[in-house]
Amino acid sequence: MSLLVIGTLAYDTVETAHASRDRALGGSAVYFAVAAATSCQPRLVGVVGNDFEQEHLDDLMERGVDCSGVEVADGKTFAWGGRYEPDWNTRHTTFTDLNVFEHFDPKVPENFRESPYVFLANAHPAIQLKGLKQVTGKRFAVADTMNLWIDIARDELVELLGHVDGLILNDEEARMLTGLDNLHQAAKKVLEMGPRYVILKKGEHGAFLLGEGLHFALPAFPVTEVVDPTGAGDSFAGGFMGAIAQADSIDHDVLRRAMLHGTVTASFCVQGFSIEDLGRRGPEELQARYDQLLSILTV
Amino acid sequence: MSLLVIGTLAYDTVETAHASRDRALGGSAVYFAVAAATSCQPRLVGVVGNDFEQEHLDDLMERGVDCSGVEVADGKTFAWGGRYEPDWNTRHTTFTDLNVFEHFDPKVPENFRESPYVFLANAHPAIQLKGLKQVTGKRFAVADTMNLWIDIARDELVELLGHVDGLILNDEEARMLTGLDNLHQAAKKVLEMGPRYVILKKGEHGAFLLGEGLHFALPAFPVTEVVDPTGAGDSFAGGFMGAIAQADSIDHDVLRRAMLHGTVTASFCVQGFSIEDLGRRGPEELQARYDQLLSILTV
Repeated sequence: MSLLVIGTLAYDTVETAHASRDRALGGSAVYFAVAAATSCQPRLVGVVGNDFEQEHLDDLMERGVDCSGVEVADGKTFAWGGRYEPDWNTRHTTFTDLNVFEHFDPKVPENFRESPYVFLANAHPAIQLKGLKQVTGKRFAVADTMNLWIDIARDELVELLGHVDGLILNDEEARMLTGLDNLHQAAKKVLEMGPRYVILKKGEHGAFLLGEGLHFALPAFPVTEVVDPTGAGDSFAGGFMGAIAQADSIDHDVLRRAMLHGTVTASFCVQGFSIEDLGRRGPEELQARYDQLLSILTV
Repeated sequence: MSLLVIGTLAYDTVETAHASRDRALGGSAVYFAVAAATSCQPRLVGVVGNDFEQEHLDDLMERGVDCSGVEVADGKTFAWGGRYEPDWNTRHTTFTDLNVFEHFDPKVPENFRESPYVFLANAHPAIQLKGLKQVTGKRFAVADTMNLWIDIARDELVELLGHVDGLILNDEEARMLTGLDNLHQAAKKVLEMGPRYVILKKGEHGAFLLGEGLHFALPAFPVTEVVDPTGAGDSFAGGFMGAIAQADSIDHDVLRRAMLHGTVTASFCVQGFSIEDLGRRGPEELQARYDQLLSILTV
């Protein structure tokens, strides 16, 4: 079934202890869509500037992403720069040029509005809600967020939480949103704020899902050679939602398997810059990694 | 089959954000033995001073711990003081009085020497090795360690690693011992140092076991009300080794189930001061928590 994502397309400038990339294709919706494209044909809604290269749109379309919801606005594409410390756990943002994204007003094309599965990638919660309200066919909508919005747009975020089925966030964001240190308590408090499910990501420590009587936890895939962690969270979400859209179900077995699928997808993402290693591996390699992860957590 | 533990018996003075305890029964071998006593009758080798109260020895024996290897030396029992920050992740040692433990020279009683399962609780690695060498019947020996020994007795620790079957350590210790940030790489490097298995504990993020073609990871049990984390690591080890001794096997299925057993045992430990909540729950409650953990990680 159809999966819609609303979020950023960007040019990322990334520096790690080992290498760097200048203006590589990035953005939350790009990572998400490319990850989801291994399971379905995701529909992308976002905005780019007139500096956005046609080859990048072609690349996304070749991978099966429907880009007819990508608006071209006068100006420059959203650009972000980041630098990672050698331990990968600390990221410094070197610059954030919102550019055309500053006035992003999501317009969901008519033929996208019946999409049952929706992902609201990281953006101001008021923008996320504005996008969501246009998707009249939505059955299962999940939102991402970040520290910035918890800090400066808490009311709008709380309002959004009354309209989504799931919230996906990391440990630091969960603690900041709820004021609770214990992640299990924090996840429970998020559920009280509205969503039926919360997916809490803990980086190298894996993730867990809580809600509707289901509690499922799994470790991260043991990647030993990290090249660039940018986009890992969005790739996880893309793998997760892609598996759900493909199964056209949110029963508990599907959700558990979708968590594994998200974990495996994110593991490919961090092994290359940008979307270089994401979605480029064949189904056999994806299945092999899924089976390996399954063996790690099977009693 | 018989399980032997060599380590400390102590009086702990613990302060948390909510409460405190003065001179409560503690020590690595005490936590371990009490935890293991839910599965077998562990044999304890250690030293106490003549201030050690008979009621504490009686308590241990009542729980099924064979204390005939506990030597009473002239002087005071090892005493330790610690204070936890409200987030539980930071612990300050307020004092360490080694007392009679300073000159601990482990003497394994004749009838303990055929014990096939051995745990060397945290102590100077030369003392651990001296104890281990007396256990002529050992088939599966696991050691714990700590930052202090990695720092000041690395050579002795490396020598010990050539004599044990497993090393159990936390994330910080693994990084310090190997110089590697990536925990999976660090665990692999520990295996190159000698042991067949490494068990890496990550506190609230669970633990994983690696070795002999087995890789098994599991989350921590979701405890929402922590009272005192002291002894959690030793309780984990006690639950783990107790399950192995009970099964009298280290086949992979047993090791996986022993990891769950250790996790559940540690979850009871942190819900009370000292050994108050450890081993006091009936088999039904233990089984219920085991089943709950199993459901959390079953795909």
